[in-house]
Amino acid sequence: MSSREEVGGSMEPSRDLIGLSSEPLSIERVYSSAVSPSCGAVALFIGTTREHFEGRRVIRLEYEAYEPMVKSELSAVCRDIRSRWPMVKHICIQHRLGLVPVAEASVAIAISSPHRCEAQEAVGYCINALKASAPIWKKFMNLKNRSGRKILNVAGLETAEVAGLE
Amino acid sequence: MSSREEVGGSMEPSRDLIGLSSEPLSIERVYSSAVSPSCGAVALFIGTTREHFEGRRVIRLEYEAYEPMVKSELSAVCRDIRSRWPMVKHICIQHRLGLVPVAEASVAIAISSPHRCEAQEAVGYCINALKASAPIWKKFMNLKNRSGRKILNVAGLETAEVAGLE
Repeated sequence: MSSREEVGGSMEPSRDLIGLSSEPLSIERVYSSAVSPSCGAVALFIGTTREHFEGRRVIRLEYEAYEPMVKSELSAVCRDIRSRWPMVKHICIQHRLGLVPVAEASVAIAISSPHRCEAQEAVGYCINALKASAPIWKKFMNLKNRSGRKILNVAGLETAEVAGLE
Repeated sequence: MSSREEVGGSMEPSRDLIGLSSEPLSIERVYSSAVSPSCGAVALFIGTTREHFEGRRVIRLEYEAYEPMVKSELSAVCRDIRSRWPMVKHICIQHRLGLVPVAEASVAIAISSPHRCEAQEAVGYCINALKASAPIWKKFMNLKNRSGRKILNVAGLETAEVAGLE
């Protein structure tokens, strides 16, 4: 046993897993990819489609992304997390694209660390950083299936464009 | 549609789900029981068995509980959460009892809310309150399968008892 293992570390390499998919997200899989024998904590955040937005009924959201830039932006977020919380072990960030019905997950983040504070703080930071920097567009569909408000989050700026919302 | 629904609320009643089980915890099930169409956020915390504790190798943990008191203590934690974060929708707290091997989950908490801050803050509060108040005992087993340190968390006091740890 190495001295690193003796003080509670682990030789298992840390992982950053970033994915975009048009399939439903498996929360069990996101969780499992962050679990580590060297960690006592996994914190997760899941963003889901709400049935209301600013008092209007939503039937589903649609997400579009500029995929090459999403991956580089989220890799930068992972590096930031590792510099702020060096005890973080694995980071898994999965975002769904395309249509996401009410109550289904659009984004799932799981982060492990030996103790709970680091994992919880890092997940809070991660979802805020993702919303601020990842080029992922969100379009609301209202009850009559018209396009609603389109929101673009990119480079820390949020711009809103109204397009046919009743 | 009621005026409550129109402003983004939901008529679905809030749920507090508290469970103790000797079976492995299903993270997907804990997550699913907290999801709500009225919410855009589910925060989770999962506590897992670490392979090391204070520099010593752990092969598994064993949990024992005084079950009737656990349920009443955790119900009180749920009430506290609802008074601090009234927007919280569902709360699910599941604790495994008996042997929990390395990297498996001993506790899983999922909390939903319309927006992410409340769910994340409430989960952080919940795991701290559970550790401080629930009468759940944790016993470490080291490599030679001897009983290790036994820790009792009850009524905010943590007492440690050394029993055969090498």
